[in-house]
Amino acid sequence: MSISGRDIITLENLSDGEILQIFETADKFEPVARGKEKSDVLEGKIIGALFFEPSTRTRLSFKSAAKRLGGGTIGFAEAGVSSTAKGESLADTVRTVENYCDAIILRHPKMGSAKFAAEMVEVPVINAGDGAGHHPTQTLLDLYTMRKATGDLEHFDLGLVGDLKYGRTVHSLAYAITRFIPKLFLISPPSLKMPSEIVGDLSDRGVEVVETSNLEAILPELDILYVTRIQKERFPDPAEYEEIKGTYRVDPELLQEAKPELSVLHPLPRVDEISPEVDSTPYSMYFDQVFNGVIVRMALLSMLIG
Amino acid sequence: MSISGRDIITLENLSDGEILQIFETADKFEPVARGKEKSDVLEGKIIGALFFEPSTRTRLSFKSAAKRLGGGTIGFAEAGVSSTAKGESLADTVRTVENYCDAIILRHPKMGSAKFAAEMVEVPVINAGDGAGHHPTQTLLDLYTMRKATGDLEHFDLGLVGDLKYGRTVHSLAYAITRFIPKLFLISPPSLKMPSEIVGDLSDRGVEVVETSNLEAILPELDILYVTRIQKERFPDPAEYEEIKGTYRVDPELLQEAKPELSVLHPLPRVDEISPEVDSTPYSMYFDQVFNGVIVRMALLSMLIG
Amino acid sequence: MSISGRDIITLENLSDGEILQIFETADKFEPVARGKEKSDVLEGKIIGALFFEPSTRTRLSFKSAAKRLGGGTIGFAEAGVSSTAKGESLADTVRTVENYCDAIILRHPKMGSAKFAAEMVEVPVINAGDGAGHHPTQTLLDLYTMRKATGDLEHFDLGLVGDLKYGRTVHSLAYAITRFIPKLFLISPPSLKMPSEIVGDLSDRGVEVVETSNLEAILPELDILYVTRIQKERFPDPAEYEEIKGTYRVDPELLQEAKPELSVLHPLPRVDEISPEVDSTPYSMYFDQVFNGVIVRMALLSMLIG
Repeated sequence: MSISGRDIITLENLSDGEILQIFETADKFEPVARGKEKSDVLEGKIIGALFFEPSTRTRLSFKSAAKRLGGGTIGFAEAGVSSTAKGESLADTVRTVENYCDAIILRHPKMGSAKFAAEMVEVPVINAGDGAGHHPTQTLLDLYTMRKATGDLEHFDLGLVGDLKYGRTVHSLAYAITRFIPKLFLISPPSLKMPSEIVGDLSDRGVEVVETSNLEAILPELDILYVTRIQKERFPDPAEYEEIKGTYRVDPELLQEAKPELSVLHPLPRVDEISPEVDSTPYSMYFDQVFNGVIVRMALLSMLIG
Repeated sequence: MSISGRDIITLENLSDGEILQIFETADKFEPVARGKEKSDVLEGKIIGALFFEPSTRTRLSFKSAAKRLGGGTIGFAEAGVSSTAKGESLADTVRTVENYCDAIILRHPKMGSAKFAAEMVEVPVINAGDGAGHHPTQTLLDLYTMRKATGDLEHFDLGLVGDLKYGRTVHSLAYAITRFIPKLFLISPPSLKMPSEIVGDLSDRGVEVVETSNLEAILPELDILYVTRIQKERFPDPAEYEEIKGTYRVDPELLQEAKPELSVLHPLPRVDEISPEVDSTPYSMYFDQVFNGVIVRMALLSMLIG
Repeated sequence: MSISGRDIITLENLSDGEILQIFETADKFEPVARGKEKSDVLEGKIIGALFFEPSTRTRLSFKSAAKRLGGGTIGFAEAGVSSTAKGESLADTVRTVENYCDAIILRHPKMGSAKFAAEMVEVPVINAGDGAGHHPTQTLLDLYTMRKATGDLEHFDLGLVGDLKYGRTVHSLAYAITRFIPKLFLISPPSLKMPSEIVGDLSDRGVEVVETSNLEAILPELDILYVTRIQKERFPDPAEYEEIKGTYRVDPELLQEAKPELSVLHPLPRVDEISPEVDSTPYSMYFDQVFNGVIVRMALLSMLIG
């Protein structure tokens, strides 16, 4: 069982066993990611990071992962400095760049672009977000953080809260985490509910799905609360947005009802959905999540091309 | 015979022997450029890549070359983030940056800027394109690809096709390749012919120049077809552009008339001049050309500052 | 006495002894900064360079320093590609990025932002300019250059000339250098005098401050002339600017009155305040100053996280 040389376009490209193998590898890279140990796993290797849309977090996380392992990175942070401005097709861009590197990380606004790119080139392609499509390393780091917070990937009650309709992150996460846990709480305003196809898919697979709009009522049952942004521009009526925003804001007052061992996760960036006062409480796991993103990506890169 | 420390502003800065020496060095770097072997030839060295104009291909190729050899790179990808925005002269910018690195790669819109920069600093300057001027590493990788495709740099029939009037690439290439081969086919619409001064120069040096507008007729004679972009904006009459575009489009139908061993080259990015169906045929050499750009630049960097 | 792990927000964060210790370390890094020796002091370490405002000089100097020591760098060169565009707070950005690196270099337009960032994160923060606030590594390299030019940091007569009212650089420098020398000459047009609070502070500390608008008269007394830009936009009356500009332009004619051992410094970029003819004279130290910026930053990075 080896994922060497494979493309990672969605989490469906990885078996449960492979996911766990990535996580065990990630565990071992923690001291390297903290700068306390050195590694030369990617020495002489180059990662091409092609970001057709800006993304500080994902881009810097991958670059840090590559460099901590002794590898180099090349690429661009926005479409403006790419050859696309000269009319070059995505196919030609990736077939060009594969000559400069050993793996391509692709962030592109168009859904399906990573899969398309992977078909064009020989080197492994990692999808770092393809519009409304997938962002598998985000999902991996979310799962990894849950496993670390609770000790395993099987025995916890997870609630996803916020905009469950438009959020790519929670769609991928809902499919992925229910490969490991049997039940899922979905908490959102009625207008931002998880698409019914996804809920249907999960039910068909035997997952117990609990949908509610009342975060306060469900909170005491949860071991993990995964919070996402509710974007103002989704609401035709600003007053509705203001009301909902308040209801779903995670703050110390709300958390009084939570289990003491609750972990609060968030893919970041956040705007108002989690009060800064939560940051210094034991509930806060969202900056640990950021760190976990580095070691998960280190594990993935080392297993694909190391 | 050593090129250590020299500036590379045009291909005229290199003797025929030195060019061949670069190519022999490039041959040896192939496994390193493929990430299969490690090299520390540039360990501890830093390359300054100053791109006052965006250029994915050249910039990433140089960065890949430096990093494959263990070197670091610094610089910028567009003029906007440079001190030029604060009114700094090019002279001061390069005299500043030479304190940060061991060689400067310069792409600048103004013809003559690389030569000027080289006069200002002690470290070697490599011209990576100075407007309508030169781009010697592009020419080197073109020559290298021809040598690799045909087995030598002397015995083949080469046709340059497309916009021969405005294309900097083909002007430099015409001068350079005729240092090695005695004959050149120039194929273009009448309005985009190679400038007569250049044709005159070549003839004066004893080169046999064949000019034609009929690609189809001349194709069967060629061992290498070097294709360049025909830009719409060169034509006052759009109808004329559409007609010409069709005539010079390289596709499988046209290639039926070619020698089986024909190699098709293109400096990229391409738009419509080569049909994507050609990519998977044995004629296609333009992505190999991209790879060759890395090893030629590795050879050059290692010989200048390694 | 160790500065390991400390934040460097202003030069006040360093004792006189620590400053001298940095300079002695910088001395030793000179051959490494020239690419003549290798160092692995920062191997496995990553520097996060967050530039919310463009700055070629400071950014490339820090990157060169990190890479010469075997370290890696990540970050961004302008706010546009950061998550700030998505509404993320500076606090969240730095708390995110600290998970990717071992130290953060921050350039931000808002005064106080570096101090704020340092309070948010565990890793050391180096202020690389916070608007009208501080830029301690610029001041360090200025002091280092004076020490190198004169042989010590105590026995020379220094004049600061130009815009002393708005220039952040000269304010920090005035406070810092008078920790070592007892007298300071301030040369500016009356409308661009050093703020009286600063002059008062210096006098209170026993520094002898000589203020004048006549550069020519004072020049023969000086061992070091530190020149800064006079910006046109500071003057309501363009005619006044033109007159002053001429008076404070440093050129060979003016320098005929100077001591032969005078050193002319400038933080760069310059516009018109120093004639290019001065560059090749023994007076010119401003490009040495650029190089000194690299070794001083190497020393600082190695002492903070090496």
